[in-house]
Amino acid sequence: MRRFRIGLAQVNCTVGDLEGNTAKILRYIERAKAMEVELICFPEMAITGYPPEDLLLKPEFIADNLKNLDVIVGHSAGIAVVVGFVDSRDGLYNAAAVAYDRKLCGIYHKTYLPNYGVFDEKRYFRPGTEAPIFVISGVSIGVNICEDIWYPTGPASRQASAGAEVILNISASPYHAGKRDLREQMLGHRASEDAVILAYTNLVGGQDELVFDGGSMVLDGRGEAIARAKQFEEGLLVVDLEIEERHQGPRRGKRRRDSERERGQGPRIIVSREAHTEPKVAIPPRSVEIYDPVGEIYAALVLGTRDYIHKNGFSRVVMGLSGGVDSSLVAAIAVDALGPENVIGVSMPSRYSSEGSKTDAQLLSENLGIEMKVIPIEEAMQGYLNMLAGPFAGTQTGIAEENLQARVRGNILMALSNKFGWLVLTTGNKSEIACGYCTLYGDMAGGFAVIKDVPKTLVYELAGYKNSRAGKEIIPRSVIEKEPSAELRPGQRDVDSLPPYEALDPILKAYVEEDKSLGQIIALGFDRELVERVIALVDRSEHKRRQSPPGVKITPRAFGKDRRFPITNRYRVGVRG
Amino acid sequence: MRRFRIGLAQVNCTVGDLEGNTAKILRYIERAKAMEVELICFPEMAITGYPPEDLLLKPEFIADNLKNLDVIVGHSAGIAVVVGFVDSRDGLYNAAAVAYDRKLCGIYHKTYLPNYGVFDEKRYFRPGTEAPIFVISGVSIGVNICEDIWYPTGPASRQASAGAEVILNISASPYHAGKRDLREQMLGHRASEDAVILAYTNLVGGQDELVFDGGSMVLDGRGEAIARAKQFEEGLLVVDLEIEERHQGPRRGKRRRDSERERGQGPRIIVSREAHTEPKVAIPPRSVEIYDPVGEIYAALVLGTRDYIHKNGFSRVVMGLSGGVDSSLVAAIAVDALGPENVIGVSMPSRYSSEGSKTDAQLLSENLGIEMKVIPIEEAMQGYLNMLAGPFAGTQTGIAEENLQARVRGNILMALSNKFGWLVLTTGNKSEIACGYCTLYGDMAGGFAVIKDVPKTLVYELAGYKNSRAGKEIIPRSVIEKEPSAELRPGQRDVDSLPPYEALDPILKAYVEEDKSLGQIIALGFDRELVERVIALVDRSEHKRRQSPPGVKITPRAFGKDRRFPITNRYRVGVRG
Repeated sequence: MRRFRIGLAQVNCTVGDLEGNTAKILRYIERAKAMEVELICFPEMAITGYPPEDLLLKPEFIADNLKNLDVIVGHSAGIAVVVGFVDSRDGLYNAAAVAYDRKLCGIYHKTYLPNYGVFDEKRYFRPGTEAPIFVISGVSIGVNICEDIWYPTGPASRQASAGAEVILNISASPYHAGKRDLREQMLGHRASEDAVILAYTNLVGGQDELVFDGGSMVLDGRGEAIARAKQFEEGLLVVDLEIEERHQGPRRGKRRRDSERERGQGPRIIVSREAHTEPKVAIPPRSVEIYDPVGEIYAALVLGTRDYIHKNGFSRVVMGLSGGVDSSLVAAIAVDALGPENVIGVSMPSRYSSEGSKTDAQLLSENLGIEMKVIPIEEAMQGYLNMLAGPFAGTQTGIAEENLQARVRGNILMALSNKFGWLVLTTGNKSEIACGYCTLYGDMAGGFAVIKDVPKTLVYELAGYKNSRAGKEIIPRSVIEKEPSAELRPGQRDVDSLPPYEALDPILKAYVEEDKSLGQIIALGFDRELVERVIALVDRSEHKRRQSPPGVKITPRAFGKDRRFPITNRYRVGVRG
Repeated sequence: MRRFRIGLAQVNCTVGDLEGNTAKILRYIERAKAMEVELICFPEMAITGYPPEDLLLKPEFIADNLKNLDVIVGHSAGIAVVVGFVDSRDGLYNAAAVAYDRKLCGIYHKTYLPNYGVFDEKRYFRPGTEAPIFVISGVSIGVNICEDIWYPTGPASRQASAGAEVILNISASPYHAGKRDLREQMLGHRASEDAVILAYTNLVGGQDELVFDGGSMVLDGRGEAIARAKQFEEGLLVVDLEIEERHQGPRRGKRRRDSERERGQGPRIIVSREAHTEPKVAIPPRSVEIYDPVGEIYAALVLGTRDYIHKNGFSRVVMGLSGGVDSSLVAAIAVDALGPENVIGVSMPSRYSSEGSKTDAQLLSENLGIEMKVIPIEEAMQGYLNMLAGPFAGTQTGIAEENLQARVRGNILMALSNKFGWLVLTTGNKSEIACGYCTLYGDMAGGFAVIKDVPKTLVYELAGYKNSRAGKEIIPRSVIEKEPSAELRPGQRDVDSLPPYEALDPILKAYVEEDKSLGQIIALGFDRELVERVIALVDRSEHKRRQSPPGVKITPRAFGKDRRFPITNRYRVGVRG
């Protein structure tokens, strides 16, 4: 056995920041060299950030990405580097470069291009067809990219069959709740089936509606995780792999046979035959605590919010504080993301605001240590009502007047944003946005919708998590216990317009995230009339969602580019049963 | 020679309206039967409408589409029907059914799946691999779908080689300016290369940001158009094709050889061997006037607006009338789309509105015969300024106050919309939206952005077109001649913030539509500093466009799903030259 030291650099890259990403990659290479790492891996498309979307259609962008790859290759003296970039030769490829000693030794092209969910890779890339083996420090290594590893008969299996001792997968795998566990399970299968060591390097950081959660890991040939990196944090995971000396006889996996081992299914590229001097001190296997399910989601929301704000050049945020649980949770997340000095709350009471709402908002801002402004909306409201007195004469007060209140609040926040350069956070949850229970240009007005993918029932769990982690009441108990209300008319309650959230949320999950039919949802135990009503609410509010700001995806299917629905859509599920 | 009568039904389908689309298809089948048509063609995915986007992920939707296909097949007594639908067998296919005498005789699966621009077909469909020939009334016919015909070596060529005398292409080809001419040119090449008659049936109608322009046509084996249907109108184009009798010897095309004719490259499916009794009276070749370039765009805007309004269940619209050329053009388009009785204009003067603006809005509404309300915004503005006096103390009046005016106007329009059920039309043009010269939740607030893909210089051309077609001044000369201004502060002019539109528009076209690099745009004859400034404006306003309502695509690349840019994007073209 010999010790082969690898480094998994789960870096937080920014889309389009080619120089910045490259500078970061060089810093990690230097850190790895200092730790006697023989091979360092960076995530999929680390040079460009992921996903660059239609920037990929600009030839200038591709050329600049290649120039930066050259810079990285130039810094590979004495260390092998695997890094994701965009290759261009008769078309574009999602590619991994293997560099060593200032030479570009070889390139792998991603085979499986995801084109579902949030992914559009077939819009840009051609699929690779080869599954080469790179011999690095005498170790046979199969490199592949993200989606490739999810297929049992994909390039990893071909590379293992062709003699790879280690599989490196570099990924930009977006987060949803529980996905880290899913990955570890899948990677365990893959490693044990192919009887190879599997090193998985994932991107970290927020990019518009996506969060990449890192959580890089190394699994041994039995499929057991021997090292895990943190989720949601940039870092370098250094692991000493135990490599069998050659000619001690082949190891055996469930599906691997001696005869396959030398079949040579892809090109074999010699990067470096000689092992480095073995590091004197072994690095003990390292693993980190894995988040509990709610804590993991909270951390995703914090990172997604922080990165959106900072990567877009903002440092401070402003938001409405209604005294409700949604805005309270968003404020708590914003404080954890940016620090209390960078969060400004605004209470904007109307004639319909309860006394409790005002005191709860005040109490929350004190608990969080943030500045709170109080700006009553009455004066502008009265102005609108006077201006509209003529056109509205003889009509009943209703949704138009209710929405005006929400829009006055939206305008106040946007005015503060325009004046002081603060980004507006919106506070709507997924249950509301799914049903259109929100006001365009009102509570939907802002730059980032922190909890737009968080169903209301999970909002409560996250609020509870925040308090229990803090060991004290940050979000006041009165906020958590009060009946949900938009407070846009006297005595208004959410249940006047929506089903109770305990029924609504599972119906929404079945319809929005799982594409279940009316019949299938009824079979889950819900009343037909109720299910039809919920489906109609979702179908008829697509136009609102289309004008929503982005927010952090935390479920398997978020609104946004994950779920592409026509606005003009006469399909009505309920009608035909 | 014998007469073979075909019908090209360019129907206006609605996405998701399976029953409505099917009912319409049945009506056209009956009309065709009455005209002794032997074969009638409907567009790509006529049953579902195009594009149904993620409705395709719902198994219930696919099943319902198949039930409706059964209904159509049941109505094919005595007539062959080719109709687009979604086939499902181990995956989904964009498919054409060939039915005759109440039997489903065969199915073609689209080979080339577009996954660029506005298209996401690889998200849903598998590609077909076969290029069958259908023998209908004894005539050998190759059926294929949209994108398939754009490739010289695609299924049409294989079908022609295998003996097809007629190629039927059914399409859902979205409009952009000049695309009809492009299609006729391409189809001419394809017909003459393969020496076949080519019948092209295209969808018509608006769907969210797309307009399908119809313009179905038939070309003879020399590539000459022998019949053309109107653009932007539903209709049935009936054409008598002259088919050579069999065994009179093969015709020769540029690339077609006798040996290929019988090679049988795909399955040969017999639908009906016998010709119908030949219709006694021949239908003379029919062609329609082709639009001039500006008129074509105007017609696209009218249809796109009308269909968005009606298909979403609205009948009336409301919009701000500023006295500027943008809102004047939008009002004219709305009147042509919906009738003057369904368009309500609102003039919302502020202290900065010029007297001319108010009288021009008044004059325009009189010329168009629409109702105009006047609602000055001063009272709400003063309310906001009082409410914000504390937080704004000591700051300079600027963009925050300017945007507030636009937002008060947006709120007024939305309040009228909420109260009376009118859809709000926004009036921003492409030049403004490209540069972010527009206010989120202000002038951007509304349901449909009619001219969001129309550059300012084209706005003027369209205004001139409207007047010249009307033979009188509908859009007042004073509107067209005044200097563009947002009128949000005293003496404000667009040129204070933006380059002159004559320079701006070609730079935007090069950058946004053609992905030209900084160097390439400078080489067109523009100042470097100017080009860098424009590119920076575009790059930094993506967040605004993301919250924009949809509008009609009329250029080769519109903002929206045609151009998918990250908001978080640090790539700066100007920086690196």
